Amino acid sequence: MQKEREEFLKEFTSFLQDRGFIWGPSPEIYGGFAGFYTYGPMGKLLKNKIENTVRSIFQSNNFWELETPIVLPDIVWKASGHLDTFADRIIRCSKCKAVFRADKLIEDRIDKSVDHYSDQQLLNAISENNIKCPSCSSDFVYDIKKQSLMMKTKVIDEDASLRPETATVTYLPFRRYYSFFRGKLPIGVFQIGKVFRNEVSPRQHVIRSREFTQAEAQIFIDPEKKNEWEKFEDVKKDKLPFWPWQDQESGKDPSSVSVEAAIKKGWLKTKSYAWCIWLAYTQFINMGIPPGSIRLRQHNPDEKAFYAEDAWDIEVKLRSFGWTECCGVHDRTDYDLTQHSKFSKVNLSATREDGSKVTPHVLEIAFGIDRPVLALLDIFYEKREKEEGKTLLNIPYKLAPIEVMVFPLIKKPSLLKLAEKVKKGLENDFVVTYDEAGSIGKRYLRSTELGVPYCLTIDFDSVKKKDVTIRDRNTAKQIRVKISDLKEVLRKLLENEIKFEKAGKLIKVSSLEK
Amino acid sequence: MQKEREEFLKEFTSFLQDRGFIWGPSPEIYGGFAGFYTYGPMGKLLKNKIENTVRSIFQSNNFWELETPIVLPDIVWKASGHLDTFADRIIRCSKCKAVFRADKLIEDRIDKSVDHYSDQQLLNAISENNIKCPSCSSDFVYDIKKQSLMMKTKVIDEDASLRPETATVTYLPFRRYYSFFRGKLPIGVFQIGKVFRNEVSPRQHVIRSREFTQAEAQIFIDPEKKNEWEKFEDVKKDKLPFWPWQDQESGKDPSSVSVEAAIKKGWLKTKSYAWCIWLAYTQFINMGIPPGSIRLRQHNPDEKAFYAEDAWDIEVKLRSFGWTECCGVHDRTDYDLTQHSKFSKVNLSATREDGSKVTPHVLEIAFGIDRPVLALLDIFYEKREKEEGKTLLNIPYKLAPIEVMVFPLIKKPSLLKLAEKVKKGLENDFVVTYDEAGSIGKRYLRSTELGVPYCLTIDFDSVKKKDVTIRDRNTAKQIRVKISDLKEVLRKLLENEIKFEKAGKLIKVSSLEK
Repeated sequence: MQKEREEFLKEFTSFLQDRGFIWGPSPEIYGGFAGFYTYGPMGKLLKNKIENTVRSIFQSNNFWELETPIVLPDIVWKASGHLDTFADRIIRCSKCKAVFRADKLIEDRIDKSVDHYSDQQLLNAISENNIKCPSCSSDFVYDIKKQSLMMKTKVIDEDASLRPETATVTYLPFRRYYSFFRGKLPIGVFQIGKVFRNEVSPRQHVIRSREFTQAEAQIFIDPEKKNEWEKFEDVKKDKLPFWPWQDQESGKDPSSVSVEAAIKKGWLKTKSYAWCIWLAYTQFINMGIPPGSIRLRQHNPDEKAFYAEDAWDIEVKLRSFGWTECCGVHDRTDYDLTQHSKFSKVNLSATREDGSKVTPHVLEIAFGIDRPVLALLDIFYEKREKEEGKTLLNIPYKLAPIEVMVFPLIKKPSLLKLAEKVKKGLENDFVVTYDEAGSIGKRYLRSTELGVPYCLTIDFDSVKKKDVTIRDRNTAKQIRVKISDLKEVLRKLLENEIKFEKAGKLIKVSSLEK
Repeated sequence: MQKEREEFLKEFTSFLQDRGFIWGPSPEIYGGFAGFYTYGPMGKLLKNKIENTVRSIFQSNNFWELETPIVLPDIVWKASGHLDTFADRIIRCSKCKAVFRADKLIEDRIDKSVDHYSDQQLLNAISENNIKCPSCSSDFVYDIKKQSLMMKTKVIDEDASLRPETATVTYLPFRRYYSFFRGKLPIGVFQIGKVFRNEVSPRQHVIRSREFTQAEAQIFIDPEKKNEWEKFEDVKKDKLPFWPWQDQESGKDPSSVSVEAAIKKGWLKTKSYAWCIWLAYTQFINMGIPPGSIRLRQHNPDEKAFYAEDAWDIEVKLRSFGWTECCGVHDRTDYDLTQHSKFSKVNLSATREDGSKVTPHVLEIAFGIDRPVLALLDIFYEKREKEEGKTLLNIPYKLAPIEVMVFPLIKKPSLLKLAEKVKKGLENDFVVTYDEAGSIGKRYLRSTELGVPYCLTIDFDSVKKKDVTIRDRNTAKQIRVKISDLKEVLRKLLENEIKFEKAGKLIKVSSLEK
């Protein structure tokens, strides 16, 4: 199993690099910094698509996007608790002095989460399991130290840190939102942006890196109204793959249960929080992750952050790394606003209609963008037999980084000119590229490797009859469509509004031309 | 003049804050860090629009987007020269010890750029003009020191810096591009992302801040082919507002001259570079900046970066700060690839068809996103008489942060339900929001303050006849349109494909209802 995964990962990483998806660790020419990656042309197109999907789902559910700074003065991180407590627990080899995360050493050995262990419990587990330094097999110094995850900087003379999450920074302008939204709760806001963590052991490709993109949505809500949530009614019958912590402990599988039933069973406490779980799940479905590869895992009471009232993760099953945490949904109570009000001495309460004051609670949906991008590539990448091209990206058509490619059949001026014109006509509405190099068969293969759903070929008939051939990625079937209808036909095809065979005149293709 | 500007700026800044465009310096509740800002809900919508316009213009001109890390090891900045030379020149007050940028102190007094002065020239100018400490009026310590603009950090134990531009980082994966694009020059790539500069004196709102967003496009080109640029032919007749450095010195105004003529006059050296100037100008026109507010200023030979073969800026005229540099177009020659090849010992050359090797030159178009966002607000913000609402945002319809607002005439369930349905139907295609609070007149005023082009009102007739009223922001005219036609009509209106009066049945509005 482990070996199979390692082989897959090797082959998959080289696909990511050769096809322009993800390069790194960056900067490669200088040997690379562990935990930093570069999105190549294909990877960036895909990442933009995912970010836009996320943005549009949040916006249509009444969240407003913000952009706050990445660098903040340390008083913010003192108030949030990050400066004192956001740290890896490390242990040092007595001989080679190499440093490792104590929890990861144990988890690699016993295959169980030990996040919630005390320092003493970690030391005990290292002794009991006789764990030695992975580099030189010597004993560890019997002492757990903390390595802060905060990346520090100075703004001229003042101590500051790069944010390790967007959430904290999103809470700070609460008074601004409260005034912009005319003093009414609930208020929904979100950010998509870079965050930084000084991980001791960055690992699993972009899954645990040092610089990554987070999408984090926050609802400020009156704690007395957590069970009054109109939008709950629209989604309560939807079934999600819930895995409460008791079922995890007793070895049961996740079960498909309606959001409403999950509340009745006591798995979820409030309608507003339940709706957040539903929305987070919906985000991942909309990103194109297959439902069978998703489960909702509740945190064990020992595992939750100290301020969290409840916490569930979305996990996605990867071929390279197995079930992987990709999203957290948290009821953070009034922890954040209370802390920042205390440290800033600014009142961060809201006023109810009856005049009484309340510090809003925060419900949070937090996920990375890099993980779902990697997940989509991991799930939909396929190795092929040599004669068909080496690889295929079987990604859902709507998520394809490049949607349309335009090929002149051969390099004749009349075809090149028309091909260029067809491309120009489509580029406001689609991600479209142009390729004139090599045989048409080679170009089809290249397009399949990049997961392009539709290729348009411009031939001599195109010049005469003003039509082109559209080839479908998955079936290699071809139809003939008028240039004037192209925009509408491609839109309908990508939105899955019509069948390919009905979208134009189906043409016979000899196996050679496929 | 100065006083007028200051008054405008005060009024304008409070508009930016109250209407949810830009807040700061952030974090406000902790007193604010100079040079850091937050985009509120309206500002972020506008910033996203600008970024998407930029993205789409670059993409349709064959540039591919990338995303590289923000944090890089210091060897990169050693090679690029930033670590040693990218610094402000500062001078310290002998009494109060306050620190100031020497060049800015002089420029504020003599209204002339002294960027290219030597340290000794700066000291002389301070003496000659009898410049004293702005804080306490004492003399300065007669010594120019360097304050690095690099924001430093550590990745565990290694020295690293936050990038002060995206360009350098974009050059590092050259070998990856070269292979992805199958060994063919020219190659066009771009990035849109955050950069950080430890400015001694952040000033002029987001114009000179410490954390900001850059859009930087790079063309890798064979130096022998800088004059072979096919796309030049399509644009050579376009007239741009050129201001060569000789004309600046002789006190002439910029002149509207075709790109082709600018080459003939010797203002521009190569067709490829001339096309870059044209593309940069096109970006600003597409962002909605009025042509009359743009000029192209050539750098004086003393002012150019030491590695730059030629350098022109795009300047935009702001009501708050006058003519403001918003974009630079540079011929960076082979400086960057040569440096990084030397420091990394990796070959960064390309191979010509005849087998000979060449280190590509780089043509760069670099601009911030924050400056054009501020420029649009600065140019299109209008103060109004009290009875019409206090302010108006007269932004071009295509650039409006919110494109459509939906209002139920009054809070009756049938109207609320239909309004919600109309909104849902539009939200995949437009930025659309919903407002039910206050009289319809008040809601119209609020929409005008935010620059919303079209408001849809749902009344009792809407329920019966399945149509709505569309109100035009600038004329307050109203038309009646079928709900089933809304998407198409709004699209055509925003694309300026039809006249408002022809887009539906014009209805009479009493002045009261306007």
